[in-house]
Parts: sequence; structure tokens; C-alpha cells
Amino acid sequence: MEPEKISTESYKGVRDFYPEDQAFFKYLTSTMREVVAKFGYAEYHASILEPAELYRSKTSDEIVNEQTYTFVDRGGREVTLRPEMTPTVARMVAAKRRELGFPLRLFSIPNVFRYERPQRGRLREHWQLNVDLFGSKSAHAEAEIISVAHALMIAFGATEDDFIIKLGSRNFLNALVRKLKLSDTDAKKLRSILDKRSKLGVGEFERQLVDLGIAAEMLDDKVVPEDVQAVLDILAARGITNAAFSPDIIRGFDYYSGVVFEVFDTHPMNSRSLFGGGRYDNLLALFNEEKVPGVGFGMGDVTIKDFLDVRGLLPAYIPTTHLYIAVANPEMVARAEELALMLRKENVAVAVDFGDKKLGDQIKAAAKHKIPYLLVVGEDEVTSGTYKVKNLASGEETALSGAELSTFFLNLK
Amino acid sequence: MEPEKISTESYKGVRDFYPEDQAFFKYLTSTMREVVAKFGYAEYHASILEPAELYRSKTSDEIVNEQTYTFVDRGGREVTLRPEMTPTVARMVAAKRRELGFPLRLFSIPNVFRYERPQRGRLREHWQLNVDLFGSKSAHAEAEIISVAHALMIAFGATEDDFIIKLGSRNFLNALVRKLKLSDTDAKKLRSILDKRSKLGVGEFERQLVDLGIAAEMLDDKVVPEDVQAVLDILAARGITNAAFSPDIIRGFDYYSGVVFEVFDTHPMNSRSLFGGGRYDNLLALFNEEKVPGVGFGMGDVTIKDFLDVRGLLPAYIPTTHLYIAVANPEMVARAEELALMLRKENVAVAVDFGDKKLGDQIKAAAKHKIPYLLVVGEDEVTSGTYKVKNLASGEETALSGAELSTFFLNLK
Repeated sequence: MEPEKISTESYKGVRDFYPEDQAFFKYLTSTMREVVAKFGYAEYHASILEPAELYRSKTSDEIVNEQTYTFVDRGGREVTLRPEMTPTVARMVAAKRRELGFPLRLFSIPNVFRYERPQRGRLREHWQLNVDLFGSKSAHAEAEIISVAHALMIAFGATEDDFIIKLGSRNFLNALVRKLKLSDTDAKKLRSILDKRSKLGVGEFERQLVDLGIAAEMLDDKVVPEDVQAVLDILAARGITNAAFSPDIIRGFDYYSGVVFEVFDTHPMNSRSLFGGGRYDNLLALFNEEKVPGVGFGMGDVTIKDFLDVRGLLPAYIPTTHLYIAVANPEMVARAEELALMLRKENVAVAVDFGDKKLGDQIKAAAKHKIPYLLVVGEDEVTSGTYKVKNLASGEETALSGAELSTFFLNLK
Repeated sequence: MEPEKISTESYKGVRDFYPEDQAFFKYLTSTMREVVAKFGYAEYHASILEPAELYRSKTSDEIVNEQTYTFVDRGGREVTLRPEMTPTVARMVAAKRRELGFPLRLFSIPNVFRYERPQRGRLREHWQLNVDLFGSKSAHAEAEIISVAHALMIAFGATEDDFIIKLGSRNFLNALVRKLKLSDTDAKKLRSILDKRSKLGVGEFERQLVDLGIAAEMLDDKVVPEDVQAVLDILAARGITNAAFSPDIIRGFDYYSGVVFEVFDTHPMNSRSLFGGGRYDNLLALFNEEKVPGVGFGMGDVTIKDFLDVRGLLPAYIPTTHLYIAVANPEMVARAEELALMLRKENVAVAVDFGDKKLGDQIKAAAKHKIPYLLVVGEDEVTSGTYKVKNLASGEETALSGAELSTFFLNLK
């Protein structure tokens, strides 16, 4: 009895990365690693599995109760697939705070999970660069974190006209709540109104504020809070000109405690928040008595890919394999492998065909792999010791001896 | 009311990677990527979440029922954290078999999950290089896969004396089962006895074989099956001398269908199987009618780390940050950042202290980070334009102008 065929589809809302997708992912993460390393950040990592309690007290209830993947393991432990990395890095820093030096600069590129309806830019799993600086209360800390975000955008090929960095302040917001003596419920409403400002439109935004007894003038972006101004001054000294105060920038998570920021695309077709972060000075107090101030941000791979796509900044695919060696018949494979072995010693990446199919199909396979160069090993080549290296894109052929081959590929790099 | 403190421990059986752990992981994975790329393998990736049905028909029941993390998502779908990568890559290849060229060389370095009692080398989550070659029935395919495994061991600093590659054959085993007319139960028993050979000892091994009506001579490693001999001949031609037939090598998974192999540590303190793989020609038939032959192996990070540790082959930790800039007081930070900005443009990785703590503590932090060089920016340095670069390991100091600094670091690389 034939068993039923299994579907080749991946789990809903997650992605398969074929070589071309993975090559883009490699470009993205290599660029991220290069930029943050220059600022002195060291890479860390952790498992996607975390005790569920890690998310109970500090993220909004909505996330813990409706949006996480949480299950009970065979040992009765409640375990969560991390929905974000900040609680994890806070846990790790709290665990070794005596051994680690401060200021401590850390980054990671983890995958994070949210159970939600898949839609553009919001999959169930995405990858997210997390950059965090612990142990400094200086405004230079926020300025550096924002500078790293800025440097990343530039490294991806964006100009300062392509994006704007909007800064807000939780201190400013909290002062407003105190001044107006807002109840907890109304304070939450205010945060929600601010968060939805662009969606509400000016009229509805002001109407909802008035309902809470707040005049729109109280949220004037001309009156810059002190903490935001200090960061803006340092950014200006660093030569960053596309940053400005925006009172509606508050960020979703409850743990933010000071200056927060979001990077917005300025493109009319895609004018939305790309990513953001801010200061969270009290998060580590969840684990032990000592407070360790922190500031950081997270940048997701899907959003950045969309941004690069709209701007025409996606890099072309270049496979890591330089040369494909096809064979006139299976008896030639040993000779093809000798040649490949010699070239690999010279750091040329070579794939060999074992002659399962005829020559025409071997060449088609090389083309499907988008490998740039091809040569065929047959009786003639073995006798003469001369190989014709074909550029598969242009069709151009170069006749070379075995010894000349490695020089040919080294000069291409 | 103070909320209760949360534990800083990670979930049981998984690991936190602090910068030194991550640096080793980076060394491991970079070496893997470099070696396999030279053989023409392209990197792919997939989510850890897979539909549970993917593991039902082809892995042993034990794994699916007792050792996987399987749960039901909020949409009622049964989902599994992948326990191994082969079913995933088979699924991906089956899904795009018309677009992909064959032979197809793929690799990935995924994390995989097993619910089992944590013990040395057997965590609940580990990372595993997976190397697979699809579309060739040639013995050159097995030989290449084994050559890649061999090249990896050499790249990690091992010599041919440090490990031995043992080859077995599922064809040989199946022929034996047919010849002896063993029932399915007895065939399973035979596989189990072979799998436990080294644990059983010679006497018990032979006794259990006799119980099944098998004479020990039938499993003589002097009588090499044809398929294994063909691979051994190619390996010898490639200059690989530490490979041999061993009739007890069968591998656990049901999907193996031809030559299988395992790499063993030859160290008396750690003489165990490090990793292995083999040919699986029928796996893709689970997804569609077409058969696509495959051969591959998986190499786990924990086992390899243990191997390198025992052999004294673990690399020393070198942070990616070259220079730490401390400040005499917080007013100096702007000058320190100017200097850092200049050096970063020359590709020097620089961390700046924001002066939250006094100078002595800043230097201690740099030492905790193991950053090799330090300089202090104070009134004197700003006035003179000369900086003393200190090698924190040797204590040696070099006085340099701002312009000389970048040359100093470029020459170090």
C-alpha cells in the first residue's frame, strides 16, 4: 500500500530560505555584524526557548496571552518561543553582572516568534538585529545607539533623505500624565492615541485628546523635552541631521523609561516606522536588586528587505561557487576531481558533475545554479591539458592550462 | 508591593551564548562555511517550526512520540520543533524540484531540538551542520560527502590519526536479512545489536547474534561489500587513508538506503562516534512520485567542541573590538567620540566609555571585555594631540598622534 504523500509546504507564516534567499539574508546579517562591530559591540546568542515567566511581568498582556507560542513541555514546564530578545539579554546580563564589564555593548541576530495572522512584513517568525548598551545613564548612550541605527541605514545604501529618526520621551509623557492627574486607564488611552496618531488623522487625533482633557498644544513638537534635546545635540555633533523630536513616539513595550526613537521611511509609498528602540533603565531590576540602565533597539529583516526593495537597493545574487566542472562521460569524473582538488587548494570554489546526465543537461544545471563559469573535462582536454573556461552569462570562452586556471580565478576576485 | 524576582536561568537543557561562547560558535560555523563552499555547496535555511506530519512516516517512532517538541498551535495545527534537518531539506527540494538544478549541493547550520534528559554532548537544543548532495547515484557522491567531512576535521586542526571514518552498507544489511529470511522483528533486533556493538563487548555481541541464527563470520569486516569498496577506492584516489569498512555501522534513521558512515574519535578518552550520514535514495518519494537520490551528513556543535577540547584545538578568544577609549572625565566624551569616528572610518573597531565611572573602573571594564588596546582621552591628550596606546596584556605603551593611530591598528591586522 502506497503511503499518502506529504505536503511540501512549510508551516504557515514562516519562510523557507533557498540559496538566493539565504544569500540576501547573509548580505543583511554580514552588513549588520560589520557595522555594529566597529562600534565595539560583541555578539551573544540564546535559545529560542525561554521559561514563560520571563514574559509575564514586563510585556503587555496582549503579547503574552494572545500572541506568543507558549506550551507545556513533557516535564510540566511552561515554555515560550521568544517573541522579542530584550527580556533574554536582560536575563543574561543580570545572571553575570559581576563578571561582565560595564558599559557593556551587546548584539545578536535572533529569530523571534509571534502568533498572528500572517501579512506583509508581519510573519509569525522573523529575524531581528538587537543592539543593546548596558551600564550608562549618559545621553551619549542613546546617541550612540541611534548612531548605530543611522550607520546601518547608510551601510545598506540609504541616504539621509530616505529616512528620518523621530525621538520621543517617556519622561515627557509621564510628566504630562502627572500634571493632568490622569488615571491609569486614561494614561493608557493617551499612549494608545499617540501610538495611532498617523492612522487617526489630525481631526480625530485632537478630538480624542480633548476627550481626555488634553489640548493639542501640550503635544507640540516645537517644545523639545530636555532629555531628547541632549541626545539631538550629540547627534548633530556626530553629523546626523535627519533626527527630530516627535511627541507621539512612545513605543509599545512597558519597560521603556526614557528617550525612545523610531526610524521612519520617507518614501511616499512606504512611509511607515521601520524599527526603533529606547532607554529601559529598570528592566534588570526584575531579576535582582541592582539596577543596570539599558538602551537598545531591534531591526527586523522583513521590514528592511521591503525598504531596500522599494528603494532598488537589493543586491544581485552571486553564488559562492565560482566554477562548475562538467564531464563528457562518467569516466572523466576522477580527472575532473583532480582538477577541482587543485583549484580548491587555491581557494577557488568548485562543483563537479558526476555525469549522471548527459553534457547538455549538466550545463543546464550549472546555469540553474547561476554559477558564473563552466569547463568541460573530456578526452580532448585530458590529452591536450587545455581547458576552455566559459563565462555562462556572456558566452565568452578562454583556453587555459591547468596551471593558468587558478590564476584566472584569483584575478577575478 | 515589590514583584517577585524572576530567575536568570535559561530553560533546561539549552545554552546561553555569551560573547566568548559566541566567538567559538562563530569560529566553528565560519570554518564550516568556508570548507563546504569550496566543494560548491550553497547555503539554505528554514524555520524551526515544521508541520508535525513531516516526521510521522520516516523517522523511528521513538523520536516522534517520545523525543520531539510537538504542540498544537492556536489554529489547531500540530507543529514540531525540528529534531533533525534532513526531512526539511527533502521537503524543500521536493517543493522546487523543477526549478532546481541537479546535482544539487546544499548546506545549512540549523538548531535542532530533542526532548531528552540533558547529559554530556546531548542537550535539548544543539546546532548541526547539514551537508547534502541530491540527484546523483554515483559512488562519487558518497565519496564527496565523506571528503567534505574529512576536510572539515582537517580544517579544525585534526590529523588523520585523530579520527577514523567507518563505512557501512544498508544494502549489505538488507541482503543479509533476506538471505537469513529474518522476520521484521528480528531484522530490527539485528540493527539494534549492530548499533550497540561497542557497548556489548565481543562475547555478548556474538551471543546475541547467535540467538538470531547469525554466525559472527557473516559480519566480517574483511569481506567488504561492493558499494562500500567503490567509495573506498575513490577516497583512496583522493588521498584519504583513514577510512575503512565496518559492518556494524548502520545509522539510526530508517531513511538510509545505501552506504552509511560514521566518523569516530580515535582518542582513548573519547573514542566514540562524532557524527555521520549516508545515502537516502527514497526520502523524496514521500512528497511526490519522482525519486531524487540523496546523500548527506550532519555534524553537531557540541560533539565537535568536546573533540577539539580533548585535543587542545580550541581557539583562544579574541574580541572583535580592537581599542577601548576611556575618558578622564565625562567632558572628554565628545573628543573621544571624534577620535573613534575617525578610526572607525579606517575599519578599526572602537568602544568608547561615557565616563559613568572613574578612570580605574573604566580600565577594569576594558580588561573584563578582553579588548587588547586602550587609550585615555584627558586634557593633556587633547592639548598635545598625542595618545598613549596601551597593550592591556603586556602593559606596553606607544605614544601616537591621531593620524598615526589608524596606521598602528591597520598594521596589527
